[in-house]
Amino acid sequence: MSTSRSGGYHHGELRAALFDAAVALLAEDGADALSLRAVARRAGVSAMAPYRHYPDKGALLAALVAHGFGGLCDALREADEGAAPGQALVGQAVAYVRFARANPALFRLMFGPKRMAAAHPELTAAGDATYRVLSDRVAADAPPDRDREALAVGCWALVHGLAGLFLDGQISDRIDAPDDVAARRVAEVMLSGFMT
Amino acid sequence: MSTSRSGGYHHGELRAALFDAAVALLAEDGADALSLRAVARRAGVSAMAPYRHYPDKGALLAALVAHGFGGLCDALREADEGAAPGQALVGQAVAYVRFARANPALFRLMFGPKRMAAAHPELTAAGDATYRVLSDRVAADAPPDRDREALAVGCWALVHGLAGLFLDGQISDRIDAPDDVAARRVAEVMLSGFMT
Repeated sequence: MSTSRSGGYHHGELRAALFDAAVALLAEDGADALSLRAVARRAGVSAMAPYRHYPDKGALLAALVAHGFGGLCDALREADEGAAPGQALVGQAVAYVRFARANPALFRLMFGPKRMAAAHPELTAAGDATYRVLSDRVAADAPPDRDREALAVGCWALVHGLAGLFLDGQISDRIDAPDDVAARRVAEVMLSGFMT
Repeated sequence: MSTSRSGGYHHGELRAALFDAAVALLAEDGADALSLRAVARRAGVSAMAPYRHYPDKGALLAALVAHGFGGLCDALREADEGAAPGQALVGQAVAYVRFARANPALFRLMFGPKRMAAAHPELTAAGDATYRVLSDRVAADAPPDRDREALAVGCWALVHGLAGLFLDGQISDRIDAPDDVAARRVAEVMLSGFMT
């Protein structure tokens, strides 16, 4: 035991193995149950090995959140670029909900109370960059006489609320359609009224 | 000690005192920290007194959630009835967000995962009644060619997402206005595009 197993990893490999273990444990048991000890066990390394890369649980959670914003940001960009003309915002909305449904514990961690962002300012930048993909699309597509600041927040609230209601199991009683179809129907009816 | 203090209450008074204590403790410390023992201490009665009315913590939380839906339902109805012509849906949206901001822990408890509703089917009925205030207004005001099922879910997702983002401290960085003004601006720009 001690550090012998972790000595079998190269530097970058150990970090990747620990991170993969943390992603898996977060998905399985949620953020509260996550610990550096459990991550080490899952990765098959000594209990002390994680401390080479993550000084404490907060640092590990911050890395997970940063990874999550990277993934959500990429998903929104891809949906935007791959959408039919006029459908970019609807595409982003569907992608946002799909990301949340595919990564529920990570999504909840990303948008929890702001305590974590206070200790890790890079997370605010990551959240801002993700928001900008949505707000840039709103600015490009909304009629010029609209309140675009409020419209961007409203589009975010819509997709964020829809994602949260899906995660809490609240949607299937209200709309008779598979989840992906339901998300698209809601996005289309809410966003097609004022978009070009 | 023992039941002597609780004997000072009439039946209905004890229940009301316990309930008020639970509401206060929920607001101060959140649902996880709530216990029948803490409620008894707060109400100044014996540790056993709460069991006359609430067999376990789950029953107490269910009563709080039912109370919460009653309050939210009333707030939506009042906003709807008091709104200027054509402004009922915007009024409901602002009232929904205001309720969440005034009762953050209760709001989170009401819309947590569905486990509680499984054990307490009356909560599903309370949630449905609240939803119906919103969906009836959508049905009354939306143009007839719109997908009203999706529109009602979308309006709920919008106000629910906006409420959640306010509670998580995410809105003040995105929109430069006091919270109540921001909520109204978002509701107006998102809901005025297709409403009569």
